[in-house]
Amino acid sequence: MKKTVLVTGFAPFGGETLNPSWQVAKQLHGWQPIAEVEVVAVELACAFLESAEQLSQLIAKLQPCLVLAIGQAGGRTQICLEHVAINLIEARIPDNAGQQPSGVPVVEGGPDAYFCQLPLKSMLKALHQHAIPAAISYTAGTYVCNSTFYHLCHLRKQMHLPVGFIHIPYAPSQTINNGVASLGLDLALTAVKLCIQVALTSNNDDSYQTGTLD
Amino acid sequence: MKKTVLVTGFAPFGGETLNPSWQVAKQLHGWQPIAEVEVVAVELACAFLESAEQLSQLIAKLQPCLVLAIGQAGGRTQICLEHVAINLIEARIPDNAGQQPSGVPVVEGGPDAYFCQLPLKSMLKALHQHAIPAAISYTAGTYVCNSTFYHLCHLRKQMHLPVGFIHIPYAPSQTINNGVASLGLDLALTAVKLCIQVALTSNNDDSYQTGTLD
Amino acid sequence: MKKTVLVTGFAPFGGETLNPSWQVAKQLHGWQPIAEVEVVAVELACAFLESAEQLSQLIAKLQPCLVLAIGQAGGRTQICLEHVAINLIEARIPDNAGQQPSGVPVVEGGPDAYFCQLPLKSMLKALHQHAIPAAISYTAGTYVCNSTFYHLCHLRKQMHLPVGFIHIPYAPSQTINNGVASLGLDLALTAVKLCIQVALTSNNDDSYQTGTLD
Amino acid sequence: MKKTVLVTGFAPFGGETLNPSWQVAKQLHGWQPIAEVEVVAVELACAFLESAEQLSQLIAKLQPCLVLAIGQAGGRTQICLEHVAINLIEARIPDNAGQQPSGVPVVEGGPDAYFCQLPLKSMLKALHQHAIPAAISYTAGTYVCNSTFYHLCHLRKQMHLPVGFIHIPYAPSQTINNGVASLGLDLALTAVKLCIQVALTSNNDDSYQTGTLD
Repeated sequence: MKKTVLVTGFAPFGGETLNPSWQVAKQLHGWQPIAEVEVVAVELACAFLESAEQLSQLIAKLQPCLVLAIGQAGGRTQICLEHVAINLIEARIPDNAGQQPSGVPVVEGGPDAYFCQLPLKSMLKALHQHAIPAAISYTAGTYVCNSTFYHLCHLRKQMHLPVGFIHIPYAPSQTINNGVASLGLDLALTAVKLCIQVALTSNNDDSYQTGTLD
Repeated sequence: MKKTVLVTGFAPFGGETLNPSWQVAKQLHGWQPIAEVEVVAVELACAFLESAEQLSQLIAKLQPCLVLAIGQAGGRTQICLEHVAINLIEARIPDNAGQQPSGVPVVEGGPDAYFCQLPLKSMLKALHQHAIPAAISYTAGTYVCNSTFYHLCHLRKQMHLPVGFIHIPYAPSQTINNGVASLGLDLALTAVKLCIQVALTSNNDDSYQTGTLD
Repeated sequence: MKKTVLVTGFAPFGGETLNPSWQVAKQLHGWQPIAEVEVVAVELACAFLESAEQLSQLIAKLQPCLVLAIGQAGGRTQICLEHVAINLIEARIPDNAGQQPSGVPVVEGGPDAYFCQLPLKSMLKALHQHAIPAAISYTAGTYVCNSTFYHLCHLRKQMHLPVGFIHIPYAPSQTINNGVASLGLDLALTAVKLCIQVALTSNNDDSYQTGTLD
Repeated sequence: MKKTVLVTGFAPFGGETLNPSWQVAKQLHGWQPIAEVEVVAVELACAFLESAEQLSQLIAKLQPCLVLAIGQAGGRTQICLEHVAINLIEARIPDNAGQQPSGVPVVEGGPDAYFCQLPLKSMLKALHQHAIPAAISYTAGTYVCNSTFYHLCHLRKQMHLPVGFIHIPYAPSQTINNGVASLGLDLALTAVKLCIQVALTSNNDDSYQTGTLD
């Protein structure tokens, strides 16, 4: 029986007409990263409560072997493999449901943060070998991206489910006249594909893991 | 009997001839932020092991009522009140003792991260009221600054000791011909003084605290 | 008889409540950079036509031996000694008189650009010796600053009058919560003082001048 | 008889193994932007004297109807249509021939600067319509790019030859692990193609030209 990888992107927010995360994720729907594994791509609401509910339902239904959420990180210059999800929401702008929480935890009573358990260094190495600008990031912000990532890590703890979060820069079409950095969607797509393949095939013994047992 | 506030700065590193954190901290030695409280300022080694040992000994000896560590964040534009200390060391360059750990925890078996328990929002408000560029930051990096901050938070948990970490930009003299942002030491000094006073006098009921009980 | 140095700053624009250029310039009014020379400081309108008229009248009246105009360069990190004034206005926002010219020359029939004739390299050296972040800049933009600088250079050609333009970053109070770089007004003031003294005392035989005869 | 458009890129410099300007230019060799016009693409030495000699010989031999030089602008985020070439060389690093001139003019006795005469605003509009990040730039620096541009403008004046200079950001492969902005070569190629077509077909009556008659 085929296994499923769940890849999510977000709906546009903050006045943008597209979200590069979904532009990338939707191209992965039906893709087979390795034999007997297929990607299901879903667009999440850019809203704190809705996205969390969507994720819970999707995971219950799909029973994926890996969940990789993708988000837009406006202003960044490179693919960012997020290492840390924190238990804090500080919304600078309202989400798409009009909510703007400040100073509240993602999960009441949860730990302050979760580290990603995916082999981020191996993933990073693969991206660099393919000449893709990339780095490991130690903050996913305090908005819906981080919140989603924290929810995923919290579920991971309960379900032994590998999860990760990748931030991608604006698409070039979002920055045509403001001087903000961008990255082509083609490179972002290749990057996400590589990360999925590394995550599925790594034996998790890369040097990074020695330091982050939990 | 007088209480003590311990304020630390770091020795220069990475080829710099000064560290703005110590330039600021040393000016606070002997300062009385409020009645019956006096600052002791100490320069920490910019080295993973040494700085941790120094801190443990200083805290055991001084029994401070507050510890505020200051560090240099090259390239940042504003005073950064650090919210998160993570249990990970990824040294991009060797520390001043020649050690360059990668992928190792700050404290074996410690939680992935600690949140700062100081009233950061009240501190930030005070800085803005004094027209000082400042923000709350959600990453203190993965070098000696973060490591020191994590150690402090770990001690806090054991000793019920309020601790915090403030990153300050380069001093102008460090950036005379490279185009990197800086902030005057006078503003940084005022900022740290304000933060100490808010930390000592706040009743900790600011909106932030509602979200970060631990 | 005393000679006069005319130093100008601009009125605030673009929604700002202060302009660091005038905050600096006004502190120089009455200052004697060298014996028998005194500074007259004037605030120029941040408007294309008005500022040009003000300058012409001031120069006719004061017969200065040096004119140094100061302007705000939001987002820059260092003192910028402007090398080039171009004969083009492209206003991104309306000036304080509501004018927003686009694609028009500063001076009809004037040359495409004028180089500054002040000893910028000597001035830069002095700033660096005083540990002030500074650089020579090759664009003063296309707004009122550049327009003013071009007018000055055009007058210089007619009157053999040494003129220059210095861009200074935002003051810290303008960037308290947006993460944009700033520079303390104290450093900017020292920088302008040093530049005036170098301009008045240099024998103009620095290496730069060999390349820019006109 | 076919007309020729000369498109140049530069050899790698400053330790890079490729120069995106040549990666783009070489793909244009033999391309027909409009009927009866064909592109000849040539790699210029990244050296002050050699590049100038190459250009003079190429123009004498090819008698092109348009010359468009492309250069790398490391750190920029968008396609930059250069408006101003200045008569000054300030080399921060030696060129590929080991020369590092400072404070010398590109052309002895030439004017301080030349404006580009191509319809830059129409070109910019075309790039934005194709969702390509782009801007008009008012400084091409003081290195080989600007020097080449100035030489071209100086020849233009003598030969009534339309010339232009386009700066493109680093290619993504040049910035895989340093966090510097990049732009995909595919977008840069499309951008240059569009600029050539606009330059060849524009009737030069766009609003810009009203302001820059010479």
